[in-house]
Parts: sequence; C-alpha cells; structure tokens
Amino acid sequence: MISEVAVLNVISGCEERFQRDFEKAQNIISSMKGYRSHELQRCIESPSRYLLLVQWEKLEDHIDGFRSSSQYQDWKSLLHHYYDPFPEVEHYKTVFSSSG
Amino acid sequence: MISEVAVLNVISGCEERFQRDFEKAQNIISSMKGYRSHELQRCIESPSRYLLLVQWEKLEDHIDGFRSSSQYQDWKSLLHHYYDPFPEVEHYKTVFSSSG
Repeated sequence: MISEVAVLNVISGCEERFQRDFEKAQNIISSMKGYRSHELQRCIESPSRYLLLVQWEKLEDHIDGFRSSSQYQDWKSLLHHYYDPFPEVEHYKTVFSSSG
Repeated sequence: MISEVAVLNVISGCEERFQRDFEKAQNIISSMKGYRSHELQRCIESPSRYLLLVQWEKLEDHIDGFRSSSQYQDWKSLLHHYYDPFPEVEHYKTVFSSSG
C-alpha cells in the first residue's frame, strides 16, 4: 500500500467552499479501483492549508488509474481552482507505524 | 485529537542510520503523555525525504508536554543531526476521513 500526500494551500477566503466541494469530490476518489482510504486534515497554524492523504493499493492505481480516468476530470473541475500555488503531489511508503 | 506533521529531509547517504535511530527514538515518543500513534513514511520520488505523522490527544501534549520534557532532549540528540534543512513542524485537525 502507498500513500498519496499533498499539501493544499487554498486561496484565503475560499476555505468553506473548498470543504463543501471536497465533501462531494471525495465520493469520486473513493469509487476508484485501488482506493483504500483518505483523510483531509486542516492546519492549525495556517488555516488555509490542508493535508490530503490518500491510501492506494499500488502507485499505478493513482498515477495510471485515477489520473487517466474521466472521473479525474470531475475531481479537477471541483477542486483545482482553489489551490495557489498548485500542489506538489508525492507518494510515500510506510517505514514504521505503531500506536500506544 | 490532533496530528503533528513534519516533512523530514535527511542528509543524503544517512537514510539507513536515520531509520535505525528512528526505530530507537520512537520508543521515546510513544511513552509520552497524550501520545496516540505515529507513522514514519518514506517518499518514493525523493527517498531522502520522510513524512512523520504523530497523533496526540491535545496540541498541548506535544507543545508543552513533549517539547519541555527531558525525553525530548534524547529524541533531539538521536534525530535532529540528520535533518537538512531543519523541518517545519505543523499541527492538523481531521476534516474528513473515510475508507472504502
């Protein structure tokens, strides 16, 4: 399993609309092949900043699957106009994970 | 619950030693008051980059509790010399979270 990670800087003043549109958009991503789970988190120190974490079975499910799909076009039109600058998206693999 | 989030850029060539020392250091953090869970993830595109996520019950458990503790001095000496640049640490609250 891999994590897609993006820090999303939302245009100031658009945070509530972004959250409403993200609420719709999450139905798109969660219906895709290889999708496992996701989280949207909001920064306490910089409230226009969000962290998006999406777990995919394989890197290809995100890169080749989702990004080449027609559903990605809907995701883009719902969300991409909120970001400034446009986010860098990276992928991560778990090294350690534990809970107390 | 809140997440502590830090992107850790480790000096190139030190990744294996960093992971070994992180393995020891994680016992420090997981014994702290308010600690809930943590994850260390490694970037696929930039393998010297790691993402540290720590879940705390409250912001104060990290800021006032852990960072003012004697255990933080041990954490620092094990890990801080691996980072360049020194990481910015932020805190996040979950807005949406779901799994398929």
